[in-house]
Amino acid sequence: MASKTPVGFIGLGNMGNPMAKNLVKHGYPVIAYDVFPEACKEFQDLGAQVTESPADVAERADRIITMLPSSPNVREVYTGANGILKKVKKGSLLIDSSTIDPAVSKELAKAVEKMGAVFMDAPVSGGVGAARAGNLTFMVGGVEQEFNAAKELLTCMGSNVIYCGEVGTGQAAKICNNMLLAISMIGTAETMNLGIRLGLDPKLLAKILNMSSGRCWSSDTYNPVPGVMEGVPSANNYQGGFGTTLMAKDLGLAQISATNSMTPVPLGSQAHQIYRMMCAKGYALKDFSAVFQFLREEETL
Amino acid sequence: MASKTPVGFIGLGNMGNPMAKNLVKHGYPVIAYDVFPEACKEFQDLGAQVTESPADVAERADRIITMLPSSPNVREVYTGANGILKKVKKGSLLIDSSTIDPAVSKELAKAVEKMGAVFMDAPVSGGVGAARAGNLTFMVGGVEQEFNAAKELLTCMGSNVIYCGEVGTGQAAKICNNMLLAISMIGTAETMNLGIRLGLDPKLLAKILNMSSGRCWSSDTYNPVPGVMEGVPSANNYQGGFGTTLMAKDLGLAQISATNSMTPVPLGSQAHQIYRMMCAKGYALKDFSAVFQFLREEETL
Amino acid sequence: MASKTPVGFIGLGNMGNPMAKNLVKHGYPVIAYDVFPEACKEFQDLGAQVTESPADVAERADRIITMLPSSPNVREVYTGANGILKKVKKGSLLIDSSTIDPAVSKELAKAVEKMGAVFMDAPVSGGVGAARAGNLTFMVGGVEQEFNAAKELLTCMGSNVIYCGEVGTGQAAKICNNMLLAISMIGTAETMNLGIRLGLDPKLLAKILNMSSGRCWSSDTYNPVPGVMEGVPSANNYQGGFGTTLMAKDLGLAQISATNSMTPVPLGSQAHQIYRMMCAKGYALKDFSAVFQFLREEETL
Amino acid sequence: MASKTPVGFIGLGNMGNPMAKNLVKHGYPVIAYDVFPEACKEFQDLGAQVTESPADVAERADRIITMLPSSPNVREVYTGANGILKKVKKGSLLIDSSTIDPAVSKELAKAVEKMGAVFMDAPVSGGVGAARAGNLTFMVGGVEQEFNAAKELLTCMGSNVIYCGEVGTGQAAKICNNMLLAISMIGTAETMNLGIRLGLDPKLLAKILNMSSGRCWSSDTYNPVPGVMEGVPSANNYQGGFGTTLMAKDLGLAQISATNSMTPVPLGSQAHQIYRMMCAKGYALKDFSAVFQFLREEETL
Repeated sequence: MASKTPVGFIGLGNMGNPMAKNLVKHGYPVIAYDVFPEACKEFQDLGAQVTESPADVAERADRIITMLPSSPNVREVYTGANGILKKVKKGSLLIDSSTIDPAVSKELAKAVEKMGAVFMDAPVSGGVGAARAGNLTFMVGGVEQEFNAAKELLTCMGSNVIYCGEVGTGQAAKICNNMLLAISMIGTAETMNLGIRLGLDPKLLAKILNMSSGRCWSSDTYNPVPGVMEGVPSANNYQGGFGTTLMAKDLGLAQISATNSMTPVPLGSQAHQIYRMMCAKGYALKDFSAVFQFLREEETL
Repeated sequence: MASKTPVGFIGLGNMGNPMAKNLVKHGYPVIAYDVFPEACKEFQDLGAQVTESPADVAERADRIITMLPSSPNVREVYTGANGILKKVKKGSLLIDSSTIDPAVSKELAKAVEKMGAVFMDAPVSGGVGAARAGNLTFMVGGVEQEFNAAKELLTCMGSNVIYCGEVGTGQAAKICNNMLLAISMIGTAETMNLGIRLGLDPKLLAKILNMSSGRCWSSDTYNPVPGVMEGVPSANNYQGGFGTTLMAKDLGLAQISATNSMTPVPLGSQAHQIYRMMCAKGYALKDFSAVFQFLREEETL
Repeated sequence: MASKTPVGFIGLGNMGNPMAKNLVKHGYPVIAYDVFPEACKEFQDLGAQVTESPADVAERADRIITMLPSSPNVREVYTGANGILKKVKKGSLLIDSSTIDPAVSKELAKAVEKMGAVFMDAPVSGGVGAARAGNLTFMVGGVEQEFNAAKELLTCMGSNVIYCGEVGTGQAAKICNNMLLAISMIGTAETMNLGIRLGLDPKLLAKILNMSSGRCWSSDTYNPVPGVMEGVPSANNYQGGFGTTLMAKDLGLAQISATNSMTPVPLGSQAHQIYRMMCAKGYALKDFSAVFQFLREEETL
Repeated sequence: MASKTPVGFIGLGNMGNPMAKNLVKHGYPVIAYDVFPEACKEFQDLGAQVTESPADVAERADRIITMLPSSPNVREVYTGANGILKKVKKGSLLIDSSTIDPAVSKELAKAVEKMGAVFMDAPVSGGVGAARAGNLTFMVGGVEQEFNAAKELLTCMGSNVIYCGEVGTGQAAKICNNMLLAISMIGTAETMNLGIRLGLDPKLLAKILNMSSGRCWSSDTYNPVPGVMEGVPSANNYQGGFGTTLMAKDLGLAQISATNSMTPVPLGSQAHQIYRMMCAKGYALKDFSAVFQFLREEETL
């Protein structure tokens, strides 16, 4: 174990914290950084080396994982005044697990390549629970020859590591899945609501959909209607799960990618607008299946 | 066999023809009517009795199945000058397998009840192939005590007969399923198109979606992208399958039901508009998965 | 004055009440009916004859105006057990000023014609204020030869009486205008909101739009942003004006007409969904320009 | 005249060409650059100095106007290897009349400020005709003290120069106007189409809308229905005017600004999708009012 070379980890938030801990568990010496020093403290106690900046991390580790909230944070961590690129070593492997605009991933990959290092995008699916359990899914984009090196680290944190293609395709796969998920979830919510108003029992309707061509993950695994399934957010007042705010963010990325590639996404863009409106109507922190509740509210005078 | 009492069948088109033949095969004497006399000829040869009007059918049979294109046709067949209601016998069982507005089903059920007879709505899923093979799915709405009597006939034509609740809920279940189907199909099409433009291989993307939360019948069983699956309309230039025109019709019914019940269906109404536009752009007779092709077309100057 | 022949008036609600009073003011003996007897009391005091049913009205007057909330009410008043058609005299002129589905207008016109009488649809624009002041706009559909006879009565209540074409076109003109109004209003609201978030002063932005190609009635006459104009509902917490509930109703009629005529209305159907959602989120009784407030709400965690 | 100091002009395309000519007409010595050398030739003949790069322009002129197709072009001209910023003089005034993402305008303004110069965004409304006639409208964002200096130049090319606020608000005003314009145009097109299918005469319907609350620039000045008005693109097979491709581009900018500012734009985003689809269906080069034709096409089997 002691022979393992250190791994840098930047961004120790809700997701990064359990991910980095899984690296520690697998015996990797971790070189940690977070913009909030208190986030690092726990890792100091676990024996990790805590640093002052992304540049410091790059100086001490030639494999670095970043897990940050959004594109501007990732840009800053890479290209900022004390960013990774200031001290990155030739041949380093830089893996970004943040969910960001694939165009930004490509832009950073070019900058990294100029320094003689390698960049891969590897966003995850699965939430905090999967991060803790170490069974995230990683969708990986980048040079294929480096995929095995990345996979070695990522399998410490995930049970499923999929090679998607060139840089940016990991992000693309993630935002595509989440866009279709949002569309199916809103579709399931409005369909269930319509059926109920037309006199159908919700459990029966779900059963019919699930044995028919309307079947989808949102109807058969994560049904948004309270009382239809157990163990899902709709059974628990839409707590836990995947927050509406995060879904709105991912749909914003899909929208930007679609706009830039001139791709028509009529339902994806409408789904984006609906989650946007929900965020402003008190649903920001509820699970995204709460769109059923949002649409369900009765008209009253 | 000879002891079976006759069954009326009105509407011998693409769907009604094979359905009525399955009744004949099961030994039921069929009393047939169609607005186009030539549609009946084949049944005469099969030993069916051919009549001059729906009223005539009602005079000779106390169980009648109707299979017609749209609400006005069903209204005419029931309440027209020579309609069923002119001669319907007390205690008759009238089953309408057309796909129509559930509000019209309810209206007809009331009129039928006044005559001392029973009305059930029993629209089908599954197309001409399933009608021939006798494995349609029937979604049945009406008085529960009469369900078994209806089921006896419907099982001659379908492998799946589901009781949905009071009159109109069969229609409700059907249009709900088809609305969610349309939403998921368009969603799958725009997602696949976006992924392809972002550099993903379509087969790989389908595989990722199908193991993730974006999974739906349209992605895993009826994928709209040529080359991803075999034996589906997208593998055959979108021929066969479920026509865009028929999907547009069902979405129109969903829209009217939603408007009348003041139910918000933001994606359902957008799906309706998209299939509406496709009908006017040369896609009317293609399978509804051709929405991929519709969205796929490249912008050119 | 005494020589004027009586005019029937059915439906003495918010709109019907001041309209019927204007007929009285112009010297017409009014034969009144309302489903709520108390609504008639005031007219009794004004010297009107109050009756027991629409049929009674038809017995005593050969010109009748109806002003009712929705299609089912109009159907009942015409074709119900004690409806107008039970006693309508040959040659009567029946004018419906309700806003309803043009298909229902056509259906009633046929039934009226069978009785040897004439039906015209004449929905109004302008609210309660215009009804009081007698300056409503009437959009009239029906046989052109009868237009002058209708106009004689309608000019007592409105300043603008427009002949639109055959039966149903009055309704068509009204719902077309209101659909475009709803689209422009939502468009103005989201545009103003976007501009404000991008740093523009709302008054300046309104001024720029109003001198440019974005100009519309909603931006230059009825601006939805508080502080931009005086004397409009947005200056008075969205009280008064044209209620969100009424706009949702008219958009529902537009939607049904569009569905039945297979006309794509992508923005009209989306506008309908938005007003539908607003009704369920506490905006039902606010002026329809409150969509600015609905979209304006900030996202907070 | 000879005493006027030179003005740099970068981007001599459809719009830039007549704009720069108007500067020449007003006696300004022009320092010209275009990425296509042949675009400069004409200006050489007019006595302008033609240069090799944006940096060269910056070396020779301390007032520069840029008129380029999109954000990446503007970025390249400013920050590229031979970009303006390589040689810009302190105190220079740099005016960008391209229509781009306001976030990019802000980013460039910061970079320009670091060099001791001033950046203003000044996109135009009015097309090639207005550029030739010198009556464009300029919407200007930037430091207020510099507005008069900018106005001196811009009035040579436009009849209307409006100060909008800080950097980026010129772009904001432009994309807001065009978003509302697109929404109103599509709304007018679907309303006119619905009215026609419901039996209304198009001229009459336009007249009714224009005297009512549905009135907008698209209905009263630029009606999209052939036969309603003269001298507009709809009277000339949708040739000339403002191309669908350009509208789609501006709506993409509005979409990106809305996504980044988390502003819900439900109709704006739908308008974007519709123009996107039109571009792929053969409408790219037609005037944007051709959306009427797009929606008008009849369904046929």
